[in-house]
Amino acid sequence: MNNQTEALHGAFPHLRHLTSFDGEHAATPWLDDAEAKLNRKLCQTLEEAVKRAGLQDGMTISFHHAFREGDRVINTVVATLAGMGFKNLTLASSSLMTCNDALVDFIRQGVITRIYTSGMRGKLADAISHGLMAEPVQIHSHGGRVHLLESGELHIDVAFLGVPSSDAFGNANGTQGQSACGSLGYAMVDAHYADKVVLLAESLVPFPNMPASLRQDQIDLVVPVERVGDPGKISVGAARVTSNPRELMIARNAADVIEHSGYFKNGFSMQTGSGAAATACTRFMEEKMTRHGVVARFALGGITGSLVDLHEKGLIEKLLDTQCFDSQAAASLARNPNHIEISTEVYASPDSRAASCDQLDVVILSALEIDLDFNVNVITGSDGVMRGASGGHCDVASAANLTIVVAPLLRTRIPTVVRRVTTCVTPGESIDVLVTDHGIAVNPARPEVRERLLAAGLKVVDIETLYQRAVALTGEPRSVAFTDRIVGIIRYRDGSVIDVVRQVQEEQE
Amino acid sequence: MNNQTEALHGAFPHLRHLTSFDGEHAATPWLDDAEAKLNRKLCQTLEEAVKRAGLQDGMTISFHHAFREGDRVINTVVATLAGMGFKNLTLASSSLMTCNDALVDFIRQGVITRIYTSGMRGKLADAISHGLMAEPVQIHSHGGRVHLLESGELHIDVAFLGVPSSDAFGNANGTQGQSACGSLGYAMVDAHYADKVVLLAESLVPFPNMPASLRQDQIDLVVPVERVGDPGKISVGAARVTSNPRELMIARNAADVIEHSGYFKNGFSMQTGSGAAATACTRFMEEKMTRHGVVARFALGGITGSLVDLHEKGLIEKLLDTQCFDSQAAASLARNPNHIEISTEVYASPDSRAASCDQLDVVILSALEIDLDFNVNVITGSDGVMRGASGGHCDVASAANLTIVVAPLLRTRIPTVVRRVTTCVTPGESIDVLVTDHGIAVNPARPEVRERLLAAGLKVVDIETLYQRAVALTGEPRSVAFTDRIVGIIRYRDGSVIDVVRQVQEEQE
Repeated sequence: MNNQTEALHGAFPHLRHLTSFDGEHAATPWLDDAEAKLNRKLCQTLEEAVKRAGLQDGMTISFHHAFREGDRVINTVVATLAGMGFKNLTLASSSLMTCNDALVDFIRQGVITRIYTSGMRGKLADAISHGLMAEPVQIHSHGGRVHLLESGELHIDVAFLGVPSSDAFGNANGTQGQSACGSLGYAMVDAHYADKVVLLAESLVPFPNMPASLRQDQIDLVVPVERVGDPGKISVGAARVTSNPRELMIARNAADVIEHSGYFKNGFSMQTGSGAAATACTRFMEEKMTRHGVVARFALGGITGSLVDLHEKGLIEKLLDTQCFDSQAAASLARNPNHIEISTEVYASPDSRAASCDQLDVVILSALEIDLDFNVNVITGSDGVMRGASGGHCDVASAANLTIVVAPLLRTRIPTVVRRVTTCVTPGESIDVLVTDHGIAVNPARPEVRERLLAAGLKVVDIETLYQRAVALTGEPRSVAFTDRIVGIIRYRDGSVIDVVRQVQEEQE
Repeated sequence: MNNQTEALHGAFPHLRHLTSFDGEHAATPWLDDAEAKLNRKLCQTLEEAVKRAGLQDGMTISFHHAFREGDRVINTVVATLAGMGFKNLTLASSSLMTCNDALVDFIRQGVITRIYTSGMRGKLADAISHGLMAEPVQIHSHGGRVHLLESGELHIDVAFLGVPSSDAFGNANGTQGQSACGSLGYAMVDAHYADKVVLLAESLVPFPNMPASLRQDQIDLVVPVERVGDPGKISVGAARVTSNPRELMIARNAADVIEHSGYFKNGFSMQTGSGAAATACTRFMEEKMTRHGVVARFALGGITGSLVDLHEKGLIEKLLDTQCFDSQAAASLARNPNHIEISTEVYASPDSRAASCDQLDVVILSALEIDLDFNVNVITGSDGVMRGASGGHCDVASAANLTIVVAPLLRTRIPTVVRRVTTCVTPGESIDVLVTDHGIAVNPARPEVRERLLAAGLKVVDIETLYQRAVALTGEPRSVAFTDRIVGIIRYRDGSVIDVVRQVQEEQE
């Protein structure tokens, strides 16, 4: 201890915790080592990163799903952890897709024993719906995931985040590099909340890779890898572009609803969600906006090439982007200063000091089922098997001034409008209008909207009428046979339980 | 509790903490109120914001100093708190300036009883140096401030952050609005660490004011105010531009040192700090970079119009900016995509998962005094009175590959090169070269740098020679008379005590 510190401690006993200076690099030893100074985060292998991150059995690992069906990180990392002998991990991916079928084996082996996700599809979803896991899967919304992180229920020990490009300090973005996915809006949350953050980086570029979506002060370790994802597969599945005439008709009807809803005015804002008809609606907005001289203040959420078109034509001032739904959107994010990447916290967290969805005028969302109370199911099929995702559905539905659900009345002879949804994800009180190929139903809670649409000559009917029409076409759907066992818990955006998913009864031969 | 939740609790007792869905807005009541939904952060007056933030006696308040001598927030807020009767507050401003003289009265009144700051000047510094406060002032570096926040020693209860523009959700930046200060690199840290963050916003603009330097998810309250600062006064004092021939000569010599140091090669990086000679050096780099075909990868820290010139001429690829030192830099930040705003955490924190200064090749820094061991004083004058700031000095000096200090040998007949610095802020082990108007001294720890400079024909002398030259010109300086009382504690970047400042003895008449 030097004399100054000694004098200080004598004069100010409450400052006795202050220690003496002990050399310029006492707290930063890497500055004494030219190699460590620049490259101390770099790992040769994923195994090295896992060890250095301190992962242990029973911990929680996380991933983002910006590459959607093209993801190459989740399965690879879990396989590596299985190979290293890890057990009893909680998997917290912002979502899971058909491409994650390989996880079934790792769940069987006990590598993964709990899951938090926005949704799931394919064989993984099928197996879980049929009782693969002892512990029910926690299904959350995008905003709800941030709530779970903020509340501490979900505590990420190690986040494994695939990025198209990073420098050795961990400054990463999704717009540079070969496999550009665009926005890293999901990953930004993990980088903020996780104890340890490991980047899997496809391109290692020189410092400073800034502006950075994930910043060097958030990243612990960087592993160069060959491939993190196939951006060509982002726009398959839920985010696909449609040329289906029925979906296009519904999209056109939805655009008409927006035009006459009372919310279509200069400076309005919109979100067109995922789902083919929802995203297609954007294309029908252009003519209306041009004709009426209406410019939108912003579009929010998942951003598509169609929204980029409107932005570049001056019809949407800003794009607030949590997920690029196609390569055109990813390229725009790199190029357009008013195409802005936002985290799911800024997008839609109910716990955030402000969520952008609260500013939203109109949102168009999809549904697997919608019932007579306007409750929406986006998780389970009519067979009771999980095949969808909560996404931002309940977040934005609760916050927007006008929430429109678009859906065909029937899908392959199965009704979408039902008496009671198999699983409730978004409560009916959040839904204002349902647009189908057989008419438009308005929630009785919004009589003024119904009046406006009727005045515009749109085909407005009661939802009961749509339901009867569906039954008339297909017959009363037989109810699904479930066991009592709970395999999934549907968490509302505030963390509460809005429904549970039960195990599907095996078909009797 | 609904049936689903009841079944869930029965089957999975460890999930008993999960509650039932209780309405879409149970956790977000503002979504039921059209006014609150959009404007719930807005306060009519600063008093209202203070009350809503929950400020109490004994708490810690914080500010940023991006407006430097033009700041209009710090004094205003403290005066308001005094008027509201607050006592015993800790003031944690990223720095304090001559414009903060008004604080002396509020310290006398017991409104402010502790101070954390990078530095101070003027009457405030004079009064504190003469014993105004019972508790010594804690002087930290920019990176060291982040360390104190990270370690918890400094816990900000309420941050009051002046911003040129914000929307009602708190998305703020320093580049839009009438009083653009440019980078909000200091404030970004407060927005991250403070319990409550109050924005004082000069322009209230429509949502979304994005990209945002301070984000809506970090901000609690927004108060529209008439004026937050005078950007014309950013570039006075420490950040002034010089036409003084001696300072320009030193700047030219420093540029020669860089050229021949061994670090001047394509892809190098540099920082030119504050202080007239340091910033002027940039102007002399242009000719050298053009002649040698050298392009810098980045410039770091406080950014000046001269650095912007080099950037726009393609001689510096990226500008990493914690503080715009003039309006030209602020305008560039708004315009140039590779002029990037960074927080002081990303800039220089020793606790950060990576600090940009660790990547730095060459930095030019100032000094009030430098001694025979190359220790540097940037806080106290030769009369022992505080009149400077720690800034990023010790942070960058410890991390850069080559740290150059520029200083005139004498200032108004007072030697800069001294036997022993009055106050040690940056240890001599961090300093490689001293450039004066009477010659260049190289730290004996860097013989290879000395050889290169000698080989280039530069005027290299021993630091002892410079000291003797100073003494020959002015006589041996008389030592300052201090009392035993400690009035300031100089914290090294890692939080350790590198020196203390003692109360200046009153002159005997």
